[in-house]
Amino acid sequence: MITQTNKFKLFNDPIYGFIAIPSALVFDLIEHPTFQRLRRISQLGLSSLVYAGANHTRFHHALGSMHLMQRAIHVLQSKGHAISGTEAEAVFVAILLHDIGHGPFSHALENSLVDNVSHESISTMLMAKLNKDFGGKLDMAIDIFRDKHPKRFLHQLISSQLDMDRLDYLKRDAFYTGVVEGVINSERLLAMLNVANNELVMEQKGITSIEKFLVSRSLMYWQVYMHKTVLSAEYMLAQVLKRANELAQSGTELFAGKSLAFFLAHRPNKQDFMDNPEVLEAFTLLDDADITGAMKQWMHFDDPVLSQLCTRLINRQLFQLRFLEQDVSEQQRSYLATSIHKAHGIPMDLTAQFMLEGVASNATYRSDSQEIKILKRDGEVIPLTKASEILPISVYTHTIIRPFICWPKNIPWKD
Amino acid sequence: MITQTNKFKLFNDPIYGFIAIPSALVFDLIEHPTFQRLRRISQLGLSSLVYAGANHTRFHHALGSMHLMQRAIHVLQSKGHAISGTEAEAVFVAILLHDIGHGPFSHALENSLVDNVSHESISTMLMAKLNKDFGGKLDMAIDIFRDKHPKRFLHQLISSQLDMDRLDYLKRDAFYTGVVEGVINSERLLAMLNVANNELVMEQKGITSIEKFLVSRSLMYWQVYMHKTVLSAEYMLAQVLKRANELAQSGTELFAGKSLAFFLAHRPNKQDFMDNPEVLEAFTLLDDADITGAMKQWMHFDDPVLSQLCTRLINRQLFQLRFLEQDVSEQQRSYLATSIHKAHGIPMDLTAQFMLEGVASNATYRSDSQEIKILKRDGEVIPLTKASEILPISVYTHTIIRPFICWPKNIPWKD
Amino acid sequence: MITQTNKFKLFNDPIYGFIAIPSALVFDLIEHPTFQRLRRISQLGLSSLVYAGANHTRFHHALGSMHLMQRAIHVLQSKGHAISGTEAEAVFVAILLHDIGHGPFSHALENSLVDNVSHESISTMLMAKLNKDFGGKLDMAIDIFRDKHPKRFLHQLISSQLDMDRLDYLKRDAFYTGVVEGVINSERLLAMLNVANNELVMEQKGITSIEKFLVSRSLMYWQVYMHKTVLSAEYMLAQVLKRANELAQSGTELFAGKSLAFFLAHRPNKQDFMDNPEVLEAFTLLDDADITGAMKQWMHFDDPVLSQLCTRLINRQLFQLRFLEQDVSEQQRSYLATSIHKAHGIPMDLTAQFMLEGVASNATYRSDSQEIKILKRDGEVIPLTKASEILPISVYTHTIIRPFICWPKNIPWKD
Amino acid sequence: MITQTNKFKLFNDPIYGFIAIPSALVFDLIEHPTFQRLRRISQLGLSSLVYAGANHTRFHHALGSMHLMQRAIHVLQSKGHAISGTEAEAVFVAILLHDIGHGPFSHALENSLVDNVSHESISTMLMAKLNKDFGGKLDMAIDIFRDKHPKRFLHQLISSQLDMDRLDYLKRDAFYTGVVEGVINSERLLAMLNVANNELVMEQKGITSIEKFLVSRSLMYWQVYMHKTVLSAEYMLAQVLKRANELAQSGTELFAGKSLAFFLAHRPNKQDFMDNPEVLEAFTLLDDADITGAMKQWMHFDDPVLSQLCTRLINRQLFQLRFLEQDVSEQQRSYLATSIHKAHGIPMDLTAQFMLEGVASNATYRSDSQEIKILKRDGEVIPLTKASEILPISVYTHTIIRPFICWPKNIPWKD
Repeated sequence: MITQTNKFKLFNDPIYGFIAIPSALVFDLIEHPTFQRLRRISQLGLSSLVYAGANHTRFHHALGSMHLMQRAIHVLQSKGHAISGTEAEAVFVAILLHDIGHGPFSHALENSLVDNVSHESISTMLMAKLNKDFGGKLDMAIDIFRDKHPKRFLHQLISSQLDMDRLDYLKRDAFYTGVVEGVINSERLLAMLNVANNELVMEQKGITSIEKFLVSRSLMYWQVYMHKTVLSAEYMLAQVLKRANELAQSGTELFAGKSLAFFLAHRPNKQDFMDNPEVLEAFTLLDDADITGAMKQWMHFDDPVLSQLCTRLINRQLFQLRFLEQDVSEQQRSYLATSIHKAHGIPMDLTAQFMLEGVASNATYRSDSQEIKILKRDGEVIPLTKASEILPISVYTHTIIRPFICWPKNIPWKD
Repeated sequence: MITQTNKFKLFNDPIYGFIAIPSALVFDLIEHPTFQRLRRISQLGLSSLVYAGANHTRFHHALGSMHLMQRAIHVLQSKGHAISGTEAEAVFVAILLHDIGHGPFSHALENSLVDNVSHESISTMLMAKLNKDFGGKLDMAIDIFRDKHPKRFLHQLISSQLDMDRLDYLKRDAFYTGVVEGVINSERLLAMLNVANNELVMEQKGITSIEKFLVSRSLMYWQVYMHKTVLSAEYMLAQVLKRANELAQSGTELFAGKSLAFFLAHRPNKQDFMDNPEVLEAFTLLDDADITGAMKQWMHFDDPVLSQLCTRLINRQLFQLRFLEQDVSEQQRSYLATSIHKAHGIPMDLTAQFMLEGVASNATYRSDSQEIKILKRDGEVIPLTKASEILPISVYTHTIIRPFICWPKNIPWKD
Repeated sequence: MITQTNKFKLFNDPIYGFIAIPSALVFDLIEHPTFQRLRRISQLGLSSLVYAGANHTRFHHALGSMHLMQRAIHVLQSKGHAISGTEAEAVFVAILLHDIGHGPFSHALENSLVDNVSHESISTMLMAKLNKDFGGKLDMAIDIFRDKHPKRFLHQLISSQLDMDRLDYLKRDAFYTGVVEGVINSERLLAMLNVANNELVMEQKGITSIEKFLVSRSLMYWQVYMHKTVLSAEYMLAQVLKRANELAQSGTELFAGKSLAFFLAHRPNKQDFMDNPEVLEAFTLLDDADITGAMKQWMHFDDPVLSQLCTRLINRQLFQLRFLEQDVSEQQRSYLATSIHKAHGIPMDLTAQFMLEGVASNATYRSDSQEIKILKRDGEVIPLTKASEILPISVYTHTIIRPFICWPKNIPWKD
Repeated sequence: MITQTNKFKLFNDPIYGFIAIPSALVFDLIEHPTFQRLRRISQLGLSSLVYAGANHTRFHHALGSMHLMQRAIHVLQSKGHAISGTEAEAVFVAILLHDIGHGPFSHALENSLVDNVSHESISTMLMAKLNKDFGGKLDMAIDIFRDKHPKRFLHQLISSQLDMDRLDYLKRDAFYTGVVEGVINSERLLAMLNVANNELVMEQKGITSIEKFLVSRSLMYWQVYMHKTVLSAEYMLAQVLKRANELAQSGTELFAGKSLAFFLAHRPNKQDFMDNPEVLEAFTLLDDADITGAMKQWMHFDDPVLSQLCTRLINRQLFQLRFLEQDVSEQQRSYLATSIHKAHGIPMDLTAQFMLEGVASNATYRSDSQEIKILKRDGEVIPLTKASEILPISVYTHTIIRPFICWPKNIPWKD
């Protein structure tokens, strides 16, 4: 499948050694500006404020996932499952583009720049758009991505509890953050993949590997993805965009590149994306640099909420975060509001913008309806929870939901 | 020296495990906006266009160098060399701030945004400025940095063939690019450091370690720092800024943040920096995001040179690079100019902006007048070139100077 | 503390880069034949039959533990806890020698070559012996080892839930087996150590690090230390020695080096060690090579039990292992005995030597009465089980006790 | 090619993650006692006396080489070179068995236990023997190994400047010794392999990778394979065997297992191997444990040369080594002899056994007549020395020949 034209293309990767490009179509997609844009979108949003090494990008993650996919396809083929060259290429394309719809700072802005439009929806729209540019060559990849392909296991390689996305991001995030305990043995997991009844399964001898994988995921979850300071920074960033949006919609002119200005002024919803192709076009021009560049100018803008939030994010003077045992009392809320008003000069009716509330939960990472399936040596397929060997089942069913609040550090909690 | 206040501060680092903060002063300097700005300056400029993992920052490198410095001081103290707590802190501060004067994309813009002002000069000016903010607490650090401290070996730990800067950047760059052969054994090199006649020396038993270090450096040099595609991208970026500068100075208004606009309009020289404190102030507000954000808008600006160069850099459609055996002939130059004009619509008098010439050389990395010194077991100190054990001396004296030219890929060379 | 004489001594270590020798006494102890013997004792007994990379030795582990101890002492001193140079050296010596009493194949032979003498007892006796050779210089080290030193936390650095022994062996075993999920962040754990009320404690901010450490330990436990095939091999080896002992005590002459012959003939108990210095002397001459060398000759010895067990171990034709839900029934036992007799020619009264029963449990790794203690930010000290943040407490209280039986592979289980 | 029976067999490997078994034949060969014996033969002989982590075995190296071979075959097939399943399996078998003829401590004993019989000759004989046991299934593997197969590039994958043997041992030895600078990027080298004119070649874009590979090899050479202390230990070990041989042939009875006793008494040459199948049979029963076990008894044997050499090796009291600028003068030799006689009680006529002379040279690692060949982009094939890009050619043509002498440390050199 490697053609003379692009076979020389090997991407260096500190994790896998290097990443090969399996076909000319994949090569051309990588060269496309829409894909190149992922070079300017950090994989972990603002986590680099805590883990200074975590500046890796969506671009690298997409390539890494495609690398693992090549291994996975090779493993399944060698176990006798028919996967044609065309199907293999389609699944490579699908994994390559699975995150193409991410906006600046990955997850942080899904509900501030846009009005409740998930990155998955945008990925789907962008794939359709690319499919036009490529004369329909992405048809099968899109079917696989949307779970419309008869070989369902191909979709599960892209989206399930054991997909190549997850395998790459856990490994990559552990590597770049330096959280060594999160490291997973992706090679071993891949080698244990199999297919039964058209579904992706894990061979029984791989159970301890999955158990270790789930523990690593759990550790990464609390250590990185839901780290207090990261949460605080991401909520502050979302608040910056919300405030900029309010100001823009009330007619204030803010420093911003053309696409960002458009999003601030319109905050499009999914219907807008579908009705007006320019919305999607503008989206493909947005990246981290637009937001950071704008925030640096907004530091000096004449609105106390916007300027203070931006100054704090740029200079890393972040809000403190407190996990809550119970709802915040009215008294506490009123005390915080008054303190914010007095200490920071925020008008009373805007103090809520300095008290950011949210909920951290590991549940979002486990919501997949489809449990991991184990293929026993005798051919029976059972769910992992019936097959666990080493760890108490509670390790992976243990759901934690933690409401929290963030506010300026100089104001103590009072309860 | 670790105080209760900040001792909890450990930076995660995928390379050293973690990095400790040795004193409250160091902690406060790291928190300062001028230092936080280094988070937004990539260590390797545009190298991430070739090595997708190389998104590490000046911030992390500065911390890493300070980490190695703590080890180095510990080694020298344990060998009986008197280094007081005050001196140790001063040398930590000096290494922390050694690169504080780097502008956006590190080296790429030293002669386009500014008029021939080195990052070392700016580092010196910024240290003086910080020294005021910190009430003179940086006096000794500045003396060490400027080689005015009587213990010269302290300066050499910051700037010499075996300084902590180099030890960290080689290791860090090798790690993040994935060029594993560049990896050096910094622990072993550190353990072999010693002081003789007030100068930093290497113990004789460390010779093979230095030899390996020099080979790694040489490999990194060609494989990364002088990689053809990296060179091409960096020359294109410098050209973008030069063109923007021309346009700005001729009165054209370009999208830019306030500080960038100032630099485009004035392109200050060293005297400007000294005469006008606002120049330095504006400098501390510049980072990679300003440049990237601006280039994304300039892609659509109505100047063929600026818009095309920006589009190419953003979408990674880079010029090809050819190392030259001899000067480019007039005929060749004229052929290239005509082709650029015809194929890309660049006015004839501007075609030189699409033919970028430069010189790659490993010499710049070896220019230090002071050769590495070896402390023999009998106490004698000799230069490394007299002590080499494994490799032919030519490996590290082998100077290569390679003139090159970059131009659009669709135009073939003709000679 | 590093003296001119031995400062050149750096041991290369793939894990820590290198290991330094902190004093002349430590250097001289390492050079002593009793310590050099540890080079010939594998750290993980027969685990290399499963993990082919796990050929690391007690020698390297002892050096590694001492390396971590140097870091730990440095951390505690920098937090203001008084530890004199003499105390530091004593604790380095104590950790260096903590495993000096291990016999061939580490744990495997504690109850076959000797009659119920633990390696800790032998370590104590060997330290006393070395103390004589070194003119009493080990007095304080022995006090620390035996928990008689007033600074109890020094003892806890050697023996407790968070001692340097554990930190090194988990990291080292994970490294050499290639079980990457077992990797722990020892640097971070060390940095969080502190002392409160004369006891070793962990600072509150280190809780997630301990949680990860305990999970890693749990994974290593099942994945490596209690791996079915490893258990089977180790029980077979113990049986070889028991059989050789029976034969030797009944007057049969077996090929064996002088010391091994002595242990086979006498199987000394603790009193024997204390009464007769030659027993301890003979012990210091035993290592893995004596056992392997003898087994290779015993393969051809005229006793079906001994020759078959040896042949199987040498050629890696190991017994199968079955974890038992309930006691083995008399019927099953009788069926196995008959099958062993028929298929392998083992006399009926010896078939029990081909049915090896034991119990695997993670409890042995957790039996320390002293729970890990957490130092809260407000100064209070609480047990870890009250402080856990990420994981359900069941992960580390979850005790598993699994009886098992091993027997030849060609005989199926029947129940 | 992976069959149900053995596909579960994955060897853990700290270097590659894991190693898969590609076929039932390979699986059965690994299980064979002759191959299992390699578990007891250290890859680097006595290097662990210097690099304490280097206890890896020939067994693991053979598996590792086979792992790389699977990658190499996959690369060549994907570039369109026809390699049938049968040929692939044959080349896997050939690389697996390429070192099967190594004796105890690998290279150290090639000319003491046997009379000038290389391990390659013994490998060939053992393959023939195994071929009988396996009913001729090794025919093609043997043809490839002996360069009789028409596809010569298959042989070159096993034995040439870029064979899988070298790629694995350099990587593995660097890993276990901790000499990080020796690490090579085997993945990248493999990806650049190609075939032209039936010969194995490197694609032009892989030149810098080869240059780095050659430098790593050179560093490993001096840092590990020809390390002074390692050389000294290996020459001492060879001398032990020579002395034991002299004693055995003069009728003295020495402690030794049956096979070792046979080799000491007969020191067979190649003809003996061919004439008498028992010689080869006895050889397959020899491993490191026999030698170590015997030396431990010989420490107490009544011959000053044998007992002292053994005691020194076991307790790591090694001879010093001096590289010689010129021949040892008669005067010096006589002075050393007298000193050895006086200080160590060695009879004058045996003092030469305490003055061991040899020659270290990197030439032995470069003797292959076939230079590495480069496939240019235009299809031309040229030798590497004409294609080198980064390093001066002297780095890899630089031949060093260093005569040396080893003798007891307490006797100073006098010249």
